[in-house]
Amino acid sequence: MPTAIASVERLPHLLTLDGLGGDRIHALLDAAEALRPHALGGTGLRQVLAGRTVCNLFFESSTRTRSSFQLAAQRLGADLLNFDVAASSLSKGESALDTLRSLRAMGVEAFVVRHAEDGAVAALAAAAEPGTALLNAGDGRSNHPTQGLLDLLTIRQHKGGDFSRLAVLIVGDVRHSRVARSALHGLRQLGCRDIRVCAPVGLMPDAAELAGCSHGTALDAMLEGVDVLMALRLQRERMEEGRVPSAAAYFNDYGLDERRLALARPGAIVLHPGPMNRGVEIASAVADGPQSAVLDQVANGVAVRMAVLRHLLGA
Amino acid sequence: MPTAIASVERLPHLLTLDGLGGDRIHALLDAAEALRPHALGGTGLRQVLAGRTVCNLFFESSTRTRSSFQLAAQRLGADLLNFDVAASSLSKGESALDTLRSLRAMGVEAFVVRHAEDGAVAALAAAAEPGTALLNAGDGRSNHPTQGLLDLLTIRQHKGGDFSRLAVLIVGDVRHSRVARSALHGLRQLGCRDIRVCAPVGLMPDAAELAGCSHGTALDAMLEGVDVLMALRLQRERMEEGRVPSAAAYFNDYGLDERRLALARPGAIVLHPGPMNRGVEIASAVADGPQSAVLDQVANGVAVRMAVLRHLLGA
Amino acid sequence: MPTAIASVERLPHLLTLDGLGGDRIHALLDAAEALRPHALGGTGLRQVLAGRTVCNLFFESSTRTRSSFQLAAQRLGADLLNFDVAASSLSKGESALDTLRSLRAMGVEAFVVRHAEDGAVAALAAAAEPGTALLNAGDGRSNHPTQGLLDLLTIRQHKGGDFSRLAVLIVGDVRHSRVARSALHGLRQLGCRDIRVCAPVGLMPDAAELAGCSHGTALDAMLEGVDVLMALRLQRERMEEGRVPSAAAYFNDYGLDERRLALARPGAIVLHPGPMNRGVEIASAVADGPQSAVLDQVANGVAVRMAVLRHLLGA
Repeated sequence: MPTAIASVERLPHLLTLDGLGGDRIHALLDAAEALRPHALGGTGLRQVLAGRTVCNLFFESSTRTRSSFQLAAQRLGADLLNFDVAASSLSKGESALDTLRSLRAMGVEAFVVRHAEDGAVAALAAAAEPGTALLNAGDGRSNHPTQGLLDLLTIRQHKGGDFSRLAVLIVGDVRHSRVARSALHGLRQLGCRDIRVCAPVGLMPDAAELAGCSHGTALDAMLEGVDVLMALRLQRERMEEGRVPSAAAYFNDYGLDERRLALARPGAIVLHPGPMNRGVEIASAVADGPQSAVLDQVANGVAVRMAVLRHLLGA
Repeated sequence: MPTAIASVERLPHLLTLDGLGGDRIHALLDAAEALRPHALGGTGLRQVLAGRTVCNLFFESSTRTRSSFQLAAQRLGADLLNFDVAASSLSKGESALDTLRSLRAMGVEAFVVRHAEDGAVAALAAAAEPGTALLNAGDGRSNHPTQGLLDLLTIRQHKGGDFSRLAVLIVGDVRHSRVARSALHGLRQLGCRDIRVCAPVGLMPDAAELAGCSHGTALDAMLEGVDVLMALRLQRERMEEGRVPSAAAYFNDYGLDERRLALARPGAIVLHPGPMNRGVEIASAVADGPQSAVLDQVANGVAVRMAVLRHLLGA
Repeated sequence: MPTAIASVERLPHLLTLDGLGGDRIHALLDAAEALRPHALGGTGLRQVLAGRTVCNLFFESSTRTRSSFQLAAQRLGADLLNFDVAASSLSKGESALDTLRSLRAMGVEAFVVRHAEDGAVAALAAAAEPGTALLNAGDGRSNHPTQGLLDLLTIRQHKGGDFSRLAVLIVGDVRHSRVARSALHGLRQLGCRDIRVCAPVGLMPDAAELAGCSHGTALDAMLEGVDVLMALRLQRERMEEGRVPSAAAYFNDYGLDERRLALARPGAIVLHPGPMNRGVEIASAVADGPQSAVLDQVANGVAVRMAVLRHLLGA
């Protein structure tokens, strides 16, 4: 197993990739890479977290992400508690922090926390007692650091570790996307110098968030020389809000289809965080095509989460 | 452990009992029989599927069936993921196939799938990549093959393995029942020559489905010489649809009570897939009486599911 | 591990602390005390219930209590099935007893049952077959015996085992509280002679339930000399029913704040079953202060549940 991660200071929590530093990120990716052979099954690592308890504490439902963390914890032998807050005493008025403290008192050491509010996971982490590790599994529009790590790992596997030479295009609803924000954080930390953001005006983040990125609203013109295309999920509510006229119009302007993929650099890979709206932000021919790395992302997700859980628990 | 199952070709999926062949069905029943001592507990078989992952992928809720599969997987040492689609990203518009592929990419090898639509599980199986095993846990009105196998196993335990000598009566809402269809498939494959179907006109399947069966609407006249009585659950919606006038009238005409049971062959057994509507399709005196095999069915269900999971995963 | 528990007759179920006897209660507390080092993690006891199955059968949802039992079962190596009745076939009309019997037929040996109706768990226990152990995790307003045991254990740890010398004050909605009833049962069995109950008139239990207790409606006057203060959760519906004018008025009259805590005996401890309504029945300064034993209760809860599960299953 890799030891590189031991050469950087252990994190008490993983809340964001912002400011984490390239060395630490690469060390986590190295650890995840080494765990890949164990990510999809096998019993070789069941002693790593045996007898220790991980809790999926989800204030916002997400069956896919929760499942990925559950499998990561199981592969490492941890006890896993799924705590769905919608069904819990929080609906009776208990504070999130009291829930966390109670579960900590039952022996939970690591909390995988998803929350609809920006900053909610960091606030919980700041208030938690020492010895409680929080792993942000998505807060509002702000951060989804393990998604960022699995994106980076997938890019590194396909395009090598020198991010300074890569051109990455993020296209879609960047404004409301924690996936995009964690990708931007990670790409900057790893030295990527050609980050492009393409979105319709109503889905473009504020200028301050785009420091160092090129950006625009016309997709075709931004595809030349791109090594990595990251499509984002379009929420239906964007149409209800009037930010997007229709799914068909969106696909016409921003959907990744084969014609557009051909405008990128040959061998460019396509990422999508899932779940995909086929025919909205991505064509099936691209989603299922040879340049799609979508299922690599999913598999890498388990490995990344194993690496982070092991790191946070010092195992 | 039995080796008979190894003498027939391994199935990639278990979607239906129709056309499976008597040898293969008997081999699966032999395997289940051999697993019975381990079905209700113990740690003797925890290595069989250790490090492998089974997912209950339920597009239609069923806590009982899901629990039976969960225990079957646990007894064999598998990692078990309960994936409830009502709570998942499918409500965000992801296709069932994308959900399946994502979970496969996380390492899930066997999917226990329930779906409200006829043929939905077979369609998923046809589209899934090689190495993905699907186990139909009920689709629409069509198939519920592990229920069929547990019914057959229960009959075989009580009445012996020569199905050609048995008279089996299925009574109730056969028209809308996947349990009945899988029973019919299985009984035919095992050579049962006296299959009787009794239902009110509005709950009788189309004639084409009754090939080789005798059928009628008057229960008392059909009970003579019956070795196995299978009652089916009456859904309330049948009354709302006007197919059944009332629960009381239904019980009067089609309820299995002690008087009717006495019209069957002495020692006849009574099956019911559960959950039972006592006083509607079955009287408590019969459900809890000495000829009831209902709890045998439940216990056999775990053993059958262990056998099928082990078979599909080639363990 | 303690052997004291073996010196008293093994219980088939744990339905109430009423009439259990001081020796048996102390033996269970001794067992829980000995299990404390294992309650929050570790793999040392995974063989105790290995291969045996425990089911959380919750007819009323409670994520916290269910989690505590889940972790208790996991620490002892049991297979754990969470069976949420709201999502089950009970909504299709199956009786609770049929659900229990079906799960028993699948190999479940111990059922942790919560139910909204008084006496429902005892009724199930009375009807269950021999070899089925029921553990009441809360029924109506009547009993919550493991909560009672964890309260007693927490008191014993802080104040010693001679309950005859302690003054215990229960304050709040005693009328509707199964927590309070189990505490009263337990305290009486252990010989506590100074039990005080303080509640507004509309939340006071009937006089017959207060035999041997002092009681009143004015909190300040009842605090002198108290060693243990137990606050209870105030349900919002009490305000809707008009039993309590407002949360603010309730806090003014019955809230545990620092001023009131200072009226009790120095070193008095504060208990609360959780989830807490801060600023309603308890001030944050008290809940989080040095005299709060609330998180001790939570940790003891896992140990107590391990002890009871092990006892009921004869392991």
